[in-house]
Amino acid sequence: MPKRVDHHERRRSIADALIRVAAGQGLEGVSLRHVAAEAGVSSGMVQHYFPTRDEMMVFALAAVRDHHQARIAAVMAGLGADPSPRDTLRALITAMLPLDDEGRRYGRVALAFLAYTAVRPDVADGVRGESADLLGHLAGLIRAGAPAVTDPDSVAAALLSVIEGLGVHLLGGVLTPRTAQAAADAQLDLIFGPTR
Amino acid sequence: MPKRVDHHERRRSIADALIRVAAGQGLEGVSLRHVAAEAGVSSGMVQHYFPTRDEMMVFALAAVRDHHQARIAAVMAGLGADPSPRDTLRALITAMLPLDDEGRRYGRVALAFLAYTAVRPDVADGVRGESADLLGHLAGLIRAGAPAVTDPDSVAAALLSVIEGLGVHLLGGVLTPRTAQAAADAQLDLIFGPTR
Repeated sequence: MPKRVDHHERRRSIADALIRVAAGQGLEGVSLRHVAAEAGVSSGMVQHYFPTRDEMMVFALAAVRDHHQARIAAVMAGLGADPSPRDTLRALITAMLPLDDEGRRYGRVALAFLAYTAVRPDVADGVRGESADLLGHLAGLIRAGAPAVTDPDSVAAALLSVIEGLGVHLLGGVLTPRTAQAAADAQLDLIFGPTR
Repeated sequence: MPKRVDHHERRRSIADALIRVAAGQGLEGVSLRHVAAEAGVSSGMVQHYFPTRDEMMVFALAAVRDHHQARIAAVMAGLGADPSPRDTLRALITAMLPLDDEGRRYGRVALAFLAYTAVRPDVADGVRGESADLLGHLAGLIRAGAPAVTDPDSVAAALLSVIEGLGVHLLGGVLTPRTAQAAADAQLDLIFGPTR
């Protein structure tokens, strides 16, 4: 009787190896051979699950997104009942920033894939829809909590860019977790007015 | 008599080839062999001018910075005498965003190097000092034009992040030049108050 293989689990373990390689060595480390060595399987096996490099990239990006969503869900669960739009946004931002080792690991992978999709825009088609959803969600929270804002869609685009940019500057060491958090709070003060 | 070679010019032409390769194919395309082929010289010649890959990276990043500074200087020259802090910031942001083909080419290179330096932070040591200078400049303009802002350093960090994030989202196709410019204006409205 042939050995039963859980294909989903094997695919998942190859994807995890891919994340570790990309986080440790950057996008350049992501080759069939390196990922196979990290996962402890053959190159042929990696190729079986991910016939093209783009498919590896898309799957890894999905893993980063799943990680973000799990973090966001955990932070939201800790917010208590009926949080204010501002508190909701603050929790969202904190969940999305690479503030700890795990966040930095996933953040480096996300940045590598952003750089990849900047030269291969077709690979990012699915991601753009998600960003549009997130933008709509941010705009809704701004509309609800800061009715004086005249262009909530543009303020949401600016806020999404703040989050992205803070992440890049945290990974690059331009900002520290403390200065990045202060910048995020300053942005919330600009949108909702000072809390003091 | 041996042929005279302008070393500075050759180094420059190799660096230009490096930018074209990185902009077209991403960081992965940046190998001795590809850069040599693009520059029309031997791999040994590239290695003579840039003994390590990191040296190529640092030089290319310097080329991106030079490009930005030239654009900023051009935009500032067009501002006229004694521009307001807000107008100065708006011109700065416009100069830094990848809004046209050339801007996108340099933007893709910058993003590739950001991803590179996220896993090789030592390579980015020089860049961090420049970001600190830029942050100080932004904070000075905010202090001058928006005295009501209580924490200009954090607002400057948020603004620098907006610029970085808008660039990433422009390159990724999440924002269009129009929506990115509207987001930048919304951010300036938040800092300085609406213009209307």
